[in-house]
Amino acid sequence: MNGAERLIETAVSAGVDVCFANPGTTEIPLVAALDAVPGMRGVLCLAESVVAGASDGYGRLADRPAMTILHLGPGLGNAVSNLHNARRARTPVVNVVGEHASWHVAADAPLTSDIALLARNVSGWVGSSTSAESLGSDMAAAIAAARAGQVATLIACADHQWGDADDGAVAVPPVARPRASDAEVEEAATLLSRSGSVLLLGGRALGESGQRSAARIAAGTGCAVMMETFPARVEQGAHLAAPHRLGYFPELAANDLAAAAAVVMAGAPEPVAFFGYPDMPSRIIADGVDRFTLAAPSSDVEDALARLADRVGASDTPPHSAPARPEVPSGPLDAMAAAAAVAALQPEGAIVVDESATTGVAWGTLAQGAPPHTWLTLTGGALGLGLPASVGAAIACPDRSVIDFQADGSAMYSLPALWTMAHEGLDVTVVVCSNRRYNIIGYELYRAGIAEPGPQARSMVELSPPTLDFVAIASGMGVPATRAVTADDLVAQLRVALAEPGPHLIDMVL
Amino acid sequence: MNGAERLIETAVSAGVDVCFANPGTTEIPLVAALDAVPGMRGVLCLAESVVAGASDGYGRLADRPAMTILHLGPGLGNAVSNLHNARRARTPVVNVVGEHASWHVAADAPLTSDIALLARNVSGWVGSSTSAESLGSDMAAAIAAARAGQVATLIACADHQWGDADDGAVAVPPVARPRASDAEVEEAATLLSRSGSVLLLGGRALGESGQRSAARIAAGTGCAVMMETFPARVEQGAHLAAPHRLGYFPELAANDLAAAAAVVMAGAPEPVAFFGYPDMPSRIIADGVDRFTLAAPSSDVEDALARLADRVGASDTPPHSAPARPEVPSGPLDAMAAAAAVAALQPEGAIVVDESATTGVAWGTLAQGAPPHTWLTLTGGALGLGLPASVGAAIACPDRSVIDFQADGSAMYSLPALWTMAHEGLDVTVVVCSNRRYNIIGYELYRAGIAEPGPQARSMVELSPPTLDFVAIASGMGVPATRAVTADDLVAQLRVALAEPGPHLIDMVL
Repeated sequence: MNGAERLIETAVSAGVDVCFANPGTTEIPLVAALDAVPGMRGVLCLAESVVAGASDGYGRLADRPAMTILHLGPGLGNAVSNLHNARRARTPVVNVVGEHASWHVAADAPLTSDIALLARNVSGWVGSSTSAESLGSDMAAAIAAARAGQVATLIACADHQWGDADDGAVAVPPVARPRASDAEVEEAATLLSRSGSVLLLGGRALGESGQRSAARIAAGTGCAVMMETFPARVEQGAHLAAPHRLGYFPELAANDLAAAAAVVMAGAPEPVAFFGYPDMPSRIIADGVDRFTLAAPSSDVEDALARLADRVGASDTPPHSAPARPEVPSGPLDAMAAAAAVAALQPEGAIVVDESATTGVAWGTLAQGAPPHTWLTLTGGALGLGLPASVGAAIACPDRSVIDFQADGSAMYSLPALWTMAHEGLDVTVVVCSNRRYNIIGYELYRAGIAEPGPQARSMVELSPPTLDFVAIASGMGVPATRAVTADDLVAQLRVALAEPGPHLIDMVL
Repeated sequence: MNGAERLIETAVSAGVDVCFANPGTTEIPLVAALDAVPGMRGVLCLAESVVAGASDGYGRLADRPAMTILHLGPGLGNAVSNLHNARRARTPVVNVVGEHASWHVAADAPLTSDIALLARNVSGWVGSSTSAESLGSDMAAAIAAARAGQVATLIACADHQWGDADDGAVAVPPVARPRASDAEVEEAATLLSRSGSVLLLGGRALGESGQRSAARIAAGTGCAVMMETFPARVEQGAHLAAPHRLGYFPELAANDLAAAAAVVMAGAPEPVAFFGYPDMPSRIIADGVDRFTLAAPSSDVEDALARLADRVGASDTPPHSAPARPEVPSGPLDAMAAAAAVAALQPEGAIVVDESATTGVAWGTLAQGAPPHTWLTLTGGALGLGLPASVGAAIACPDRSVIDFQADGSAMYSLPALWTMAHEGLDVTVVVCSNRRYNIIGYELYRAGIAEPGPQARSMVELSPPTLDFVAIASGMGVPATRAVTADDLVAQLRVALAEPGPHLIDMVL
């Protein structure tokens, strides 16, 4: 076999069997290897932002990495933004970037650039092939690195891809997440036993196991349970007591924690302001408040929480009263009606990809009474994740309904994801929040004291004229689409979209 | 004034008066400064690939830099691919990337990343603000660096933007391009006097002045005049003797130069293969053939050619017989008919942005008999330049007609450029080559010996199902669009699009 086949064989053997790809000439042997080696599903994406975002969505749901195929430095460049989100979400991704033939790099051909330099911006692990044979062990090392919860980028020279390598797969070394020590569990137990303490959940603590442990801990100690503002993945619904989500603006988040006697972090880094503002601190937890990390995001936080629950918690998950599910809305269509409609109609097992920005703020709370579902947020803050992550989530979970609650401005960064949804027949319902502005920039101008922006500043906020017609855009990529101008329209169209297989888009005019 | 205003004032004072922008919260003071300081035109782009490609197209036509506003590392990431093209084209671009408040960077907030690391991949100059006051001198340094023919990236911290700075603009230091020495001119004269020598033009040599000098040199010495394969900008038309364009595949380019006694390069780097292939060398010029650089791409190549023409050339531009302009095509629509239609109908002064990939290969030759026009190619090879570069070219030259000869696959990387065309009312005619495949990948599979690709490899070549409907996509962004299925359709629709102001798109079904 050649080096490319050895790479793919190693991936398949390790259970990495989905490849989001936007290949070019330097990746031709990898493209051919998709047929030569059985077991890898290639998914063509028509832009690299889609490749990266789909890999992130896939990894968050599958809890194992997909691989990518990207074309040289420019291909990686287009992927940087959504790989940034994957890095922040600690999503396992094995990113394979083709490079010129090793002997051709020095010629400085038009597409040559320093790929490794670029890769370091978003990758916890960066490797470069040194021979055809190395592509097997390189890929095994990349997979191991990705399984630790990071983006691993392997740069694969074209001549190594087409050169001769040994047959067979290279085994991937095992990866174990660090465990909390008994002393750490004891310290957390002591702090949480103080009146007014807070257990702050993040990352893998927001799976069902972590949340059930947290509920036991709260019942045993009286602590409050909160969660980070933009978790990678949250299990939510009437079956679980929802943690309080820290506010987005630093003054809101600080207020959430103003009365905390101590904050114990489990899977969450210490909270900081999303942006720096004049005369506001970076850190959310006030000076003088004790803070302690029970388990870092890279650690085995489920184990730590289970042991802490056994130490100080109730013996079983305590009962809780779930909020009522919202009524199906009727009448005018506004942000609240949009959030209520999704929360009221989302089916059991739904995956809600939330890039709803200012429109969907209420949804997280409204959906607490919905059937069990999974919630993905814009963890790294880089716009354009929603459409591609929905592609990845749908491929990871073909039996579940995916809802992309999608801001209009953000949708523009990765439109070609719609084509892959249609091409692969994915069961995704895209609900576009067409407020036709960069609403957040309007807020931030106001926060900066610019209550009445001038014409140029206004032109940086308004997404018109012309008005973006997402029905036409989606139709142009093969996704059936409708427009909702009332809450009743939205409800009727959502019912159809959620009932029918395949992708749908609803352009909500807000 | 604040630091952001000082930056903008410095830019406007130096003649940098167009700003392609996709801002966020860390660039709010820059957004506000667009109103506070007169003279800067902000152009909103709905994705950073558009910001970067528009800056490239603008700089190639205006011969001075536009500035950008990009949001943090992910914003720069999305711009990397088209900034790669600008770097390779030696286009002057002043790239301004917002960074968190300087005191907030260490908090490692969700959107934090190593922006300078990313910037180095595409920038000849990278600077970071150190104070509000520094933003003026930083911007002046960035403009000077850009004027030398490179991407200059200034990272501007939010607190420096909003902090107090002195009033007024900072002067930009002058930049002079290096001149060829007399000895270099003499050496070039000696080599070109050999029978069978070649003068290879690139970069700024392909303006009218350089080409007229080259024609005089050819008349005086008998040398052949050729040009690099993907020049940033070529002046072309019946008024100029067209240089022979080096072939794309290395065996074609090597054949072009197989009989060369010597090659003198003026504004072109030594030609190398676009990609490395097994058993083919990186360099195009055969071993043993003398090669000499009269003027590097960064040098004053027009001066060098003028002096060389005075030394060995004819006293005036010699007469040449321009090829006939092609007939307006009729009948079936194929790649040749598409190229002929554009060449037959493009108006005098047209700017043709050529990202036509495999479809438009014949156009460059067919247009040699057309009225004077400017031709931009995909200099860096990173797909997705055509639509955004057309935005930039149209803003640089509002009185000229811009034609984007655009491959369908490549168009998908930067679709939101269509919205900016409509928003700004730009006179751009987009002619989409809908062959519905990544044709070049099909070729490359064939060249790699895979004559009958398997189903997965085929799925990486075919852009269907579903078929991309560019009429719907363009309409969704406010650009009037039509579909051409015969050459007669194309001709009729081109006539309308070129006659009417504002943007149009023609989806050519090939």
